[in-house]
Amino acid sequence: MHADNIAAHPRAALAGLFDVHAPSAADVADRHGVTSFASAAEAIAADTVDAVLIATPTSTHVDYLEAAVRAGKPVLCEKPIDLSLARVNELAARIAGSPVPIMLGFVRRFDPGHAAAQRAAAAGEIGALHQVIITSRDPGMAPDSYIETSGGIFRDMTIHDLDLARFMLGEEIATVTATGARLVDPALMARCGDFDTVVVTLSTASGRQAVITNSRRAVYGYDQRVELFGSEGMLISDNRRENLVTRHVAGATGIAAPLQHFFIERYSEAFNAEIGHFVDAIEGTAPVPAGFEDGRQALLLADACFLSVAEGRTIQTSDLG
Amino acid sequence: MHADNIAAHPRAALAGLFDVHAPSAADVADRHGVTSFASAAEAIAADTVDAVLIATPTSTHVDYLEAAVRAGKPVLCEKPIDLSLARVNELAARIAGSPVPIMLGFVRRFDPGHAAAQRAAAAGEIGALHQVIITSRDPGMAPDSYIETSGGIFRDMTIHDLDLARFMLGEEIATVTATGARLVDPALMARCGDFDTVVVTLSTASGRQAVITNSRRAVYGYDQRVELFGSEGMLISDNRRENLVTRHVAGATGIAAPLQHFFIERYSEAFNAEIGHFVDAIEGTAPVPAGFEDGRQALLLADACFLSVAEGRTIQTSDLG
Amino acid sequence: MHADNIAAHPRAALAGLFDVHAPSAADVADRHGVTSFASAAEAIAADTVDAVLIATPTSTHVDYLEAAVRAGKPVLCEKPIDLSLARVNELAARIAGSPVPIMLGFVRRFDPGHAAAQRAAAAGEIGALHQVIITSRDPGMAPDSYIETSGGIFRDMTIHDLDLARFMLGEEIATVTATGARLVDPALMARCGDFDTVVVTLSTASGRQAVITNSRRAVYGYDQRVELFGSEGMLISDNRRENLVTRHVAGATGIAAPLQHFFIERYSEAFNAEIGHFVDAIEGTAPVPAGFEDGRQALLLADACFLSVAEGRTIQTSDLG
Amino acid sequence: MHADNIAAHPRAALAGLFDVHAPSAADVADRHGVTSFASAAEAIAADTVDAVLIATPTSTHVDYLEAAVRAGKPVLCEKPIDLSLARVNELAARIAGSPVPIMLGFVRRFDPGHAAAQRAAAAGEIGALHQVIITSRDPGMAPDSYIETSGGIFRDMTIHDLDLARFMLGEEIATVTATGARLVDPALMARCGDFDTVVVTLSTASGRQAVITNSRRAVYGYDQRVELFGSEGMLISDNRRENLVTRHVAGATGIAAPLQHFFIERYSEAFNAEIGHFVDAIEGTAPVPAGFEDGRQALLLADACFLSVAEGRTIQTSDLG
Repeated sequence: MHADNIAAHPRAALAGLFDVHAPSAADVADRHGVTSFASAAEAIAADTVDAVLIATPTSTHVDYLEAAVRAGKPVLCEKPIDLSLARVNELAARIAGSPVPIMLGFVRRFDPGHAAAQRAAAAGEIGALHQVIITSRDPGMAPDSYIETSGGIFRDMTIHDLDLARFMLGEEIATVTATGARLVDPALMARCGDFDTVVVTLSTASGRQAVITNSRRAVYGYDQRVELFGSEGMLISDNRRENLVTRHVAGATGIAAPLQHFFIERYSEAFNAEIGHFVDAIEGTAPVPAGFEDGRQALLLADACFLSVAEGRTIQTSDLG
Repeated sequence: MHADNIAAHPRAALAGLFDVHAPSAADVADRHGVTSFASAAEAIAADTVDAVLIATPTSTHVDYLEAAVRAGKPVLCEKPIDLSLARVNELAARIAGSPVPIMLGFVRRFDPGHAAAQRAAAAGEIGALHQVIITSRDPGMAPDSYIETSGGIFRDMTIHDLDLARFMLGEEIATVTATGARLVDPALMARCGDFDTVVVTLSTASGRQAVITNSRRAVYGYDQRVELFGSEGMLISDNRRENLVTRHVAGATGIAAPLQHFFIERYSEAFNAEIGHFVDAIEGTAPVPAGFEDGRQALLLADACFLSVAEGRTIQTSDLG
Repeated sequence: MHADNIAAHPRAALAGLFDVHAPSAADVADRHGVTSFASAAEAIAADTVDAVLIATPTSTHVDYLEAAVRAGKPVLCEKPIDLSLARVNELAARIAGSPVPIMLGFVRRFDPGHAAAQRAAAAGEIGALHQVIITSRDPGMAPDSYIETSGGIFRDMTIHDLDLARFMLGEEIATVTATGARLVDPALMARCGDFDTVVVTLSTASGRQAVITNSRRAVYGYDQRVELFGSEGMLISDNRRENLVTRHVAGATGIAAPLQHFFIERYSEAFNAEIGHFVDAIEGTAPVPAGFEDGRQALLLADACFLSVAEGRTIQTSDLG
Repeated sequence: MHADNIAAHPRAALAGLFDVHAPSAADVADRHGVTSFASAAEAIAADTVDAVLIATPTSTHVDYLEAAVRAGKPVLCEKPIDLSLARVNELAARIAGSPVPIMLGFVRRFDPGHAAAQRAAAAGEIGALHQVIITSRDPGMAPDSYIETSGGIFRDMTIHDLDLARFMLGEEIATVTATGARLVDPALMARCGDFDTVVVTLSTASGRQAVITNSRRAVYGYDQRVELFGSEGMLISDNRRENLVTRHVAGATGIAAPLQHFFIERYSEAFNAEIGHFVDAIEGTAPVPAGFEDGRQALLLADACFLSVAEGRTIQTSDLG
């Protein structure tokens, strides 16, 4: 998808790609008439490559990110930077002072609805912001193998919402309180020390509050809503459906289509817009909309969630890294 | 229902009632501790009766209306005045000049939604009014015996919408074009020379248009919508549901409750408001909101609909009574 | 309002009433042609009084409740029973074993939408219940004098939502975590040691979660929503508006009416239904739908909220009364 | 837009293009690295061109269509085929029997919502179809120069809805009744003998009804709705908005974004799907979804509308060509 979006962007061109699964890489390279590199290192080093987009497994992000930065090439990296805050902090220390633009793939910031709500709130359309309510539920459980190595729900799923909360609140988060339950697949969750149903409450120094509600399985589809409540009003960015047909029959009215299935469909416009923002950042015409520190903060908050559940108390982020 | 509404109204009291079905009358009279009159004549004549509400079969309306007017008692009469425009015109001639307030039970004018839309349009909130779209479908077929004597769909059902169109358009209707079909119960409709599915198009001298869509059976409930389209915007008065719960499950979202079942439920607030308007008219604090001439006009338009279908042409109302 | 609802109920009659504000009492008594009692004691003792509805200031509830129970008269008491859990526990001890029906006025349980959602969830329509999300915001600040003596937001406002959460969850609450902020009127809140913007997270022994979001002032109206999320779907009981008209103009579409203003309008049907449930309980045809212990539990949870905010930790309800 | 869609389609390639405005053609050709032909004839004749898409002014359609058919190249032609039914009939006679696929650009058939509604109705999800209600209003007046030569509202605008009505009804249209008014720009409309506000009623031999409501200017945006009413239910394909954010403030709730501006945005997915259907037709894997005869029928119905308004009567299509 990223390759297609880059190729279709009027101010970008796809130079080539690398994928450990060679046939996939060859197929995409073929379709676009571009190089299929032999390794990530080769891709990052290639003269034809001006900028790098990293959408590989999480464990490779730190190395590739560092390589791209050292090569002086702007980089767009999928979240999370890493599952270990310590490794992220070490990387931060190593690349400190580099002028190379680093952008994190917090795609939800670029959703037309979420972004419009954020702009409206930031412009004061609902006065002073008081509460942010984020509902985020996946349409179904990821494979067991993913769950087992994902770093846990707060790092694999909530992390998007933690970033979105920061984006919406417009102020750093001071406290984190989380509740975790095992209701969808209790056995798997217990085995992994993980949760499938969580609520996270955040607050800022000025008292603004955010609530995140997550589930690993919503049978009715990918539920992605944001509500912003302020002193002068409320904004709601609602779910998108497959189409806008409603059916009205004996006993029930207003029956609507399922929600768009999953992130590829739901955030298709956002993924496209993300490339545009990356190009702007590369060209220097606009600041990076979600950078390395945003990635680090989201991971730090995810860690705080685990700690809060473990200790049954509110965590002060000032006590963490 | 009318008896209960009168009894509950702060500025009205139920004096008594008459019903040809004596046990029903006794039951209601008992419940409210009022007189059950022996005849309509007795009820109309009674000293304790200051005003009369007629909700009897259509064929009795003309006589009771005339009796009430001659007794000098303000009267609220259910529509239609009669099935025969000639009889209505004769009555009009006989009671011409009487100062007694006569109000017609065009209850939809008093629905909070429809009334708010009309007020907003009349106040210019959507600029100049161009089109009125009325959707009006019954939840199910009335009994055969009703259909056989109702005077036909345009007089028993569309008449409400014809009045609503006049109310919304704010201008007399110049032309009427109607299309009738037999799709719900073709055999019954053919036998009665009636239709169960109709579309009526109206236009005014200034070119404003109204469209009425009727069906004698909507399985999803009593469908009552009004759309007002103008030079500066649009107003939609939507259906009311039994409650505001939506259900979201695998394969379908937004599943809402059925529409409120039928006119008693859907227009409960309107029936209450109607009594208030009648009391205002009796007390002389406000003009009659829907009077005898409104009832006559609606019947005339219903006649025009039948003529239009029969002759396959647009009818000029100026050619009728 | 309660007097009118009792008078209008087909199986109840208003016997009389007492109000410390004598002119108000006289006015209502006059209107209904009933006795205006000289004292609460007289009202409770009167032979003509079969059952008692207490809608007096909170501080009087315990005494009146006890008097009614001792008089053997079923009682419907507005929440909260008292601001002091200790006093409530003492009362509980004194009236233990009494067969007199005591009903608490948790009116939201009787709202057509909320009640339909609860029934659907209890009937398994959304599988196993996982999360309950309650949004409850007042349209505006109560007078300072009320805030100063109300017992704080958790006891004056959240208490309704705490009861609703228990009603929806169908399982006792095991843990309580609350966050409180002063964003609407920081000075007043600081002076009273109170909050105007809170988030409460509850969980049950089986892991079910509830989230309550409160604000003392929502400029767009009285915001009352409930969302039930389960293994097989979701139910949302939405806000009610003044009417169902939408307006569509240059630059904005779907503009709807304000929400129904406040609890009298929003829960008008619920207040009516509440009387019916009380009559059922008096007649013994149905169990009391919300009893003394429900009132005690809600107060206990409100206390837990204050404790959670004060100590910055999750409270185990098993550690409280 | 068509060039971009062809280029992006996985089973199509853009071979080249011709536009009388040479700079535009050069610009698009450059961007896609394809030939800019010197004339339509050259484009149609080119060996590299396997199929032809005609999106030129209406007056050129007949000639280009015939040229493409004679060259044996499948053709997708924008509606209408021509403003003159006689010319269309003559062309039909000249190309009768040709096996070359001809597809008409009735893009609304391919809208995800409209298409899903049609499929659901055709699959019997709402029983037997009784009524089709099409609302179609442009966001603003086209330039005077367009209006003056467009062939009139029924041929330039309603023609899309006439085709959509045929598509939805699934049965040929037997009668046409139209009403036309001059409310948006009376002077221009009178000068052109045209209308800006029209209602069209259609019926089929079996009695099914369709209503089309048009306006040349809806200030709230491009209003495109379809309602299908049947014996077992109703389907509504609703408008699309720029995003799904609603705003709730003092005095108004549910304030939503404007409708997607015009046909390019509103039917973007449909224009894409149209190319896919054309490719299927070229490859012979699916029948042409909207062919020459569909184009002829829509034009015939548009003529019937003008005749109906002129003569104030219902037109039998059997009396026309």
